[in-house]
Amino acid sequence: MNKKNLIQTHERIKPYIHNTPILTSKLIDEITGANLFFKCENFQKMGAFKMRGAANAIIKLSDEQRSKGVVTHSSGNFAQALSLAAKSLGVKAFIIMPSNAPQVKKDAVRGYGGIIIECEPTLLDRENAAKDIQVREGATFLHPSNDINVILGQGTACIELLENQPKLEYIFTPVGGGGLIAGTALAAHFFGKNCNVIGGEPFEVDDAFRSLQSGFIESNISSNTIADGLKTQLGDKNFPIIQQYVEKIIRVTEQEIIDAMRIIWERLKIVCEPSCAVALAALISEKDTFKNRKIGIIISGGNVDLNNLPF
Amino acid sequence: MNKKNLIQTHERIKPYIHNTPILTSKLIDEITGANLFFKCENFQKMGAFKMRGAANAIIKLSDEQRSKGVVTHSSGNFAQALSLAAKSLGVKAFIIMPSNAPQVKKDAVRGYGGIIIECEPTLLDRENAAKDIQVREGATFLHPSNDINVILGQGTACIELLENQPKLEYIFTPVGGGGLIAGTALAAHFFGKNCNVIGGEPFEVDDAFRSLQSGFIESNISSNTIADGLKTQLGDKNFPIIQQYVEKIIRVTEQEIIDAMRIIWERLKIVCEPSCAVALAALISEKDTFKNRKIGIIISGGNVDLNNLPF
Repeated sequence: MNKKNLIQTHERIKPYIHNTPILTSKLIDEITGANLFFKCENFQKMGAFKMRGAANAIIKLSDEQRSKGVVTHSSGNFAQALSLAAKSLGVKAFIIMPSNAPQVKKDAVRGYGGIIIECEPTLLDRENAAKDIQVREGATFLHPSNDINVILGQGTACIELLENQPKLEYIFTPVGGGGLIAGTALAAHFFGKNCNVIGGEPFEVDDAFRSLQSGFIESNISSNTIADGLKTQLGDKNFPIIQQYVEKIIRVTEQEIIDAMRIIWERLKIVCEPSCAVALAALISEKDTFKNRKIGIIISGGNVDLNNLPF
Repeated sequence: MNKKNLIQTHERIKPYIHNTPILTSKLIDEITGANLFFKCENFQKMGAFKMRGAANAIIKLSDEQRSKGVVTHSSGNFAQALSLAAKSLGVKAFIIMPSNAPQVKKDAVRGYGGIIIECEPTLLDRENAAKDIQVREGATFLHPSNDINVILGQGTACIELLENQPKLEYIFTPVGGGGLIAGTALAAHFFGKNCNVIGGEPFEVDDAFRSLQSGFIESNISSNTIADGLKTQLGDKNFPIIQQYVEKIIRVTEQEIIDAMRIIWERLKIVCEPSCAVALAALISEKDTFKNRKIGIIISGGNVDLNNLPF
């Protein structure tokens, strides 16, 4: 991967994404003691950065592949992103979702034109259902985070952030499946000036933190976190990038996540997901280290269930 | 009042305000059938358009007046706006607040440097307390909405909206004390091209609707609305402007307000007050009339209590 790959990725997906706004807040700067720039991917199409990687992965397919559609398993933002990106590009998207997924998520996928295939809520059933579609339809499987084209796509949010703020010293992102932080780390390496990338991860699902310690991809035992987008684990495509380019991962408690989410809602006046508040929570939990630094924070998404808020 | 007054007002307050972003949403356009531009005053300093009028009213004072401070009675956004604008201009702000005002509102005013004078929660007590400060401190009383400099200041949000979208055919605002809609109506008249201003008002506090019908300033009997910023009534300075320049006022139910608020939070991904959702609710309630029209909506403020949401 080099700088040219990222530049080409950005050019390729530009017609399908928003260059999202960057917000600042004097009050949050006072709280943290740092100088913060929030890249608001909650304002991205379908409400999350996932649109970037999904668009890139589909565009990179051959015409033959595109004609047969794409398939993924996700009940989260990647399901919606793949559906919308596929629709924009005239491609069919098959989405494997567990039968117990919330109705609101199924409706969102259908709203973007995705074709839902329900399966039992087990790993085995999910993978069988995906294989089924690959065989039956000839559709191409696209992984939500462990795919180099997805990773490059997610990195474009960081390119835009650094175009606007070239002197950032740190960029914080949440860590879930690893696609966002790996893409961000590549972009910060090639476009930043000594810009270090730091991940935020809940203590409850600290697989990435443990993976960096052990040198192997670790799994989560519990999944007891409000940050429901971060329960997934790293993969063999993004883990080496994270090992090479990410400075460290800071773990945070559930209360720290909720407190950071409240600061974003009350001070920035924007709606963000609990998962995305983890990045700010990580910064706040070690704020003494980052005093007076110029820091970017990726606000990863804004798809929340207003009937189920932690305040 | 003429165009020059508005231009001068805008120039005068520019160092003290943000030119707030304008957001659009394909999904909300689909819901309404119109082409909407949301002027996001929830991103204004202190979180509401009130900063504009407060800044203008203080700057217009003489040096002698400024040296003695300003006083108002408000437990809402104008209290915070006057405190912050006064602080920015090196002026003392005395804020008369009822003793039973929520602690969070008192904290916000103090955070911006306002000096709180508590009074009993009655009209008489509030006015006596304000008179007291005027006599004792020589402070100048500034009304939250019935003051021509406040009205002109509030109109500058509409100037910025029309600079960005000169072809708007309608602009919707909520109606509370009348300052925002009167200022908006003046700005739309002088800066728009046949741009009509329409107010949204809760059925529960429909004093402005009734005032336009009767030709006299009417009061509210009940105040049973979630839109707590709209319980105040019009005044002799803004009512004639509203009579002359506002096309009409559309009333909405409490459920319509909550539904519109949910659309703004879920689709625009921004935090707004119930009061400000009334403008979109008004449009939606008569959406057939406004099909395919180019419409501005003033998102008036974003200061909500997250512990007390209607969802």
